[in-house]
This record gives sequence, structure tokens and C-alpha cells, in this order.
Amino acid sequence: MIIDCHGHYTTAPAAHTSWREAQVAAHDAGAAAPLYPGIGDDEIRESVEGSQLRLMADRGIDLTIFSPRASAMGHHRGDETLSTAWTRACNDLVARVVGLFPRHFAGVCQLPQSPAVPIENSVDELRRCVAELGFVGCNLNPDPSGGYWTAPPLTDKHWYPFYEAMVELDVPAMVHVSAVTNPAFHATGSHYLNADTTAFMQLLEADLFHDFPDLRLVIPHGGGAVPYHWGRFRGLADMLGRPPVEDALMGNVFFDTCVYHQPGIDLLFEVIEPANILFGSEMVGAVRGIDPRTGHHFDDTRRYVDALALAPDVRDGVYERNARRVYPRLDTLLRGQDR
Amino acid sequence: MIIDCHGHYTTAPAAHTSWREAQVAAHDAGAAAPLYPGIGDDEIRESVEGSQLRLMADRGIDLTIFSPRASAMGHHRGDETLSTAWTRACNDLVARVVGLFPRHFAGVCQLPQSPAVPIENSVDELRRCVAELGFVGCNLNPDPSGGYWTAPPLTDKHWYPFYEAMVELDVPAMVHVSAVTNPAFHATGSHYLNADTTAFMQLLEADLFHDFPDLRLVIPHGGGAVPYHWGRFRGLADMLGRPPVEDALMGNVFFDTCVYHQPGIDLLFEVIEPANILFGSEMVGAVRGIDPRTGHHFDDTRRYVDALALAPDVRDGVYERNARRVYPRLDTLLRGQDR
Repeated sequence: MIIDCHGHYTTAPAAHTSWREAQVAAHDAGAAAPLYPGIGDDEIRESVEGSQLRLMADRGIDLTIFSPRASAMGHHRGDETLSTAWTRACNDLVARVVGLFPRHFAGVCQLPQSPAVPIENSVDELRRCVAELGFVGCNLNPDPSGGYWTAPPLTDKHWYPFYEAMVELDVPAMVHVSAVTNPAFHATGSHYLNADTTAFMQLLEADLFHDFPDLRLVIPHGGGAVPYHWGRFRGLADMLGRPPVEDALMGNVFFDTCVYHQPGIDLLFEVIEPANILFGSEMVGAVRGIDPRTGHHFDDTRRYVDALALAPDVRDGVYERNARRVYPRLDTLLRGQDR
Repeated sequence: MIIDCHGHYTTAPAAHTSWREAQVAAHDAGAAAPLYPGIGDDEIRESVEGSQLRLMADRGIDLTIFSPRASAMGHHRGDETLSTAWTRACNDLVARVVGLFPRHFAGVCQLPQSPAVPIENSVDELRRCVAELGFVGCNLNPDPSGGYWTAPPLTDKHWYPFYEAMVELDVPAMVHVSAVTNPAFHATGSHYLNADTTAFMQLLEADLFHDFPDLRLVIPHGGGAVPYHWGRFRGLADMLGRPPVEDALMGNVFFDTCVYHQPGIDLLFEVIEPANILFGSEMVGAVRGIDPRTGHHFDDTRRYVDALALAPDVRDGVYERNARRVYPRLDTLLRGQDR
């Protein structure tokens, strides 16, 4: 089977998205948030049938690891209470998609992060999503400030209580930022990629995986700039007196294949061990158009991976086995479905 | 001949570097800066003979476009007056290196930037360096805050007075950040690469080169994450209703070859037109070690470019002609030297 490790619910019903704006407006006005709207199952079905499910069928993708829209997490907006209410609404909605299409989606949660709020405050929502909603992982935002990078590095003890819960629950995190308010950055054009590169370098500088040997982090968007500059990172590790990146990081760090052209995918597979690569497309997401050079969607990453003509065992690892290994709760779900 | 477009004076005499610390300490104490130390020509010769010049000879590099150490620009430290004094000292020192080895170095200046200070205040130093010191370009810092990204995007009118001077003087800028104080980032491991990606996306979103058709910007470190994600940027341009990046940007934007492994250089040349690529190594710089896989320095980028076996005309463009075209004052200098 083919598992896409990186899909966001970018087509959520308008009522959900409108409620968010009303919620923020009420917060800004010092008023109570309006009641969350009723959203029917049909609306939810429609929201994915014409987009994610259709594209998955077109591309032969069996299952998407599905999380709330990343750019809408908006951890920088309002305060922790606001973030928590929005986060629960987003996760509950993803759980309904999964409930309607359990063979096509597995849930990953966003977290009620908020600038300067301790990350242990996100543990309860992680537990709820895993225990009650059956989610298999989470998205962890290394910059809840929205482009001002006010949080400590991911290797700081600040984050440890959350990692403890992740390890206990045996779920990985995708390191994924949200929208930016800093006008220097464009969310999907620079902030996302910068965050990937930043996170990897933070991990390179410290001993996080010594402290958490079972912690698993997925760095999306093909690892940002990292594979393209693999020699730079290998050289920096050497220069900084750090162990080789392959030994110190690559037992715990995984990259997806959200790189939207063939030469990028070629490079990714040339420099990164296939065991560290999870198929992903971020579909329907950052780049929605059709590449005039190929006549296919930029984000149809399956075409690029197929074109590599990987050995069957390697290909199966990238398309399925690696995801089941990194997300063991997904593996359990799939076994329960007796596929 | 072979021109390295990206070298910093990372081996400046200790007296120069110590003076900087004394200057900042005096500023912090509200005292006058100490007098700048006397530095003999022999000290300057020694500072490059055993490092840059030796490595250039080893690698067959004829000339380096040479600027003050990027990480030491430190525009975030102190105030504009401090930045201006330091900048002049740094540029004057580079001018002395160039004066001692005019066939091996051409000067590029740092600018007296300072957070929240109008960029037009840097025009005088640019003029001084070009007119009096014979420099051929400048390094422009898109984030003088040192990792907090408080400056407007490079396409904002804030920067226009400086671009006007650049066009008038016919000098390009390398977009190059300096050290970071934000603990989220590592200077050479993430901040530099992020800045390259950020700058390119800023340029993609606006019409800067419509307003300045003769402006030329070099984005170093192989363009950050951009070539690896070339499909993403092409797709984003399409999605944002922007003209194709090749048409809108690549008449004015150039990438260097500071990518420290063969697969990265292979990708760079696969996706970017060779006319937009300038040979560079950032030597002696970010990564100083020897790659155990090859037995050669990570930053010996000439090996990677040579291994491409480019057609002679293309190769000469990357090694020499493109640099002479992007830095016309260098071309004039070289013609005057009757090489």
C-alpha cells in the first residue's frame, strides 16, 4: 500500500473556518466565543471527496496521515485559552474525517501551543487525541510566535515534558510551523522551509536523542535545505566537534518527499538513506497548480518517486513500511483493519 | 581565469578583532572607543598567505572577490555610530589586502547597517568604498537585527535609495546576513541558508526588478533551499499569480556554488541556468574541515564544479565571465591589469 505521511485538512468546511475568525474577533473584543457550528457528515464527506480522496485515488495513494491545516494553527493568535479551544475543534474535525473514511485517513493532531506557554500544557491534548480519538502522531510547532522565533531550540529542556509523553505514547511528531505574521517571510515559500532547516541544525548541535533514544521527529518538505546542503551539515558537525549526523540524528529524524520536482527528489534519495524517507505530498496544500513542463500537479510527488525506479523493497519502505515504523499506532490500526 | 565570488576576510589580524571587542565594550560602558591599532603590512600579508592565498593556489583560483568577515559584521550590536566606525575599519582593512595583492583580491564592502536605521545612511560608505577604495560590490544584510527579522522585505521601498546608488555605481550586492543572537538559529548552519531562501521568496512576491531592471543581487550558499525546491517556487509563482521565476527574477538574481558536496552542485546545475551561477567557495569560511569521504576540503567547490565536465564555454562563464558581467567594475579592473 501507499501511505502519504503529510496531508492537512486544507478543505475544511467554511463553517469551521468562519468560526475561527469569529472566535478570534470575540477574543479581541473581550467577548465570549460563539458556539461552534453544527457541521453535518455530508458536509465533511463533500469536503474531502472532491479533493483529497479524488486526488488520492488518481495517484494511487491508499491512506493519508491527516492533520489540521498547518497554516491555520495560528498559535500566535490570542492566548492559550483561545488556542486550546481552536485546537480541540480542529482535532475533533479531523477525527470526524477519519471516522467517516477510516481506511483512507489516520489522524495527527495539532497542539494548543501559545507563545511563552510551557509545552507541558499541550500534553493533555496529545493524550486526548491519542487515547480518545485514535490519533497516531502530532504536529509540533518550533515557533509558536509566527515568525519571530521566540521559543527555545527544540533541544532545550523546555520541550522535554512533551517528548516524555510522546515516547510514553509511542507517537512521533512532525516539526511543522504555522502562518507567519512577520512580513519578512512567506509561510509556504520561506517560513516552512526555514523551520525545517532550523530544526535540523538545532538537533545537530545538541544531544536530544541521547536523552530520548526512542523519540522520532519527521522534518517535512524534504528536510528544508538540509539534503541539498548535506555536505555543509556533515562538515559543520565535524567542525563543531559533534558526532557524524548519520550516527547522531538519522536513527530518529525522518524526511518526507514534499519536494515538487524530479531533480529535488533525485537529490533527496541520493544523499539520504531510504530508511529515513517517508512518502508525502502535502496534498492539497502549499502548491496546487499544474506544472506546465510536465502537465502534472507540482505536488504529485508519487510520479517523482516512481521515476526513481527504486528496488521493490526500498520502494515499499518509502511508500509504506517506514511510515508504519515511525508511526507504530498507524501500524496497529492497519493490522486491525486486516488489510 | 577562475574567480571566486565569495570570500570573507575570516583570518584578519587579531588586533583588528580585539579592537572590535574593545569598541563594543567601550560603547556599552558609555566610553569612547580606543584608537584603532596599527597593523603592519607584514601582518596583513601573513594573515592571507598561509590561508586564502595558499588555498587559492592549491585549488587554482586566480582571484577572490573579498569582503569583511560576514559573521563579524554584527549590525545588531550597539548603534549606528558604532556600526559605522567598525564598518569603515573592516572595509579599510580589506582595501589593504587588495592593495597588497591586487591580482588576487578585489574588494567588496560591508555596510554600516543598524536595526531601524534608514538604509540610505549606508550610501555614503558604499560610495566611499567604490570611489576611493576601488571596491566592486557590497554585502547587503536583509536582517540587521541578527535573527529577529525586523527589517522590511528587500522589495520594500525602504531599500530603494540604496538600490538607486547601486545602479548608479553599477555594483551588485550579495545578500548576506551576519551573526545571530536568536538562540533558535545557528549562523552558518541555518540563519545563512534561511536568509537566502527568505530573500528569494521576497523577490518572487514583488516587482523589484521592474522598478530596477539593472539591479543585480547575488544570493549565496547556492541559493539556500531554492534550487532544491525549484518546483515549489515555480509552483508558488503560478499560484500567487506572479510571472514565471525564470522571466521575473533570473535576469537579476545569481547564485554562487557554495554547496559542499557533489550531489548539491549537480542539482544546482541541473535546475539553474549556468548564466545565473557564479563560482564561489566561501573559503576560508563556514566549513573548514576535510570530508573523510573524499579526502578533500568540504569547501573545495572547484572539485565539484570540475566534476560536472561542463562544456568549455559554460565552464568559463561560471568560473569567470558571469562574475565579470555581474561585477562590471571587476571587469574594468581586470582589463586594466592587462591579464
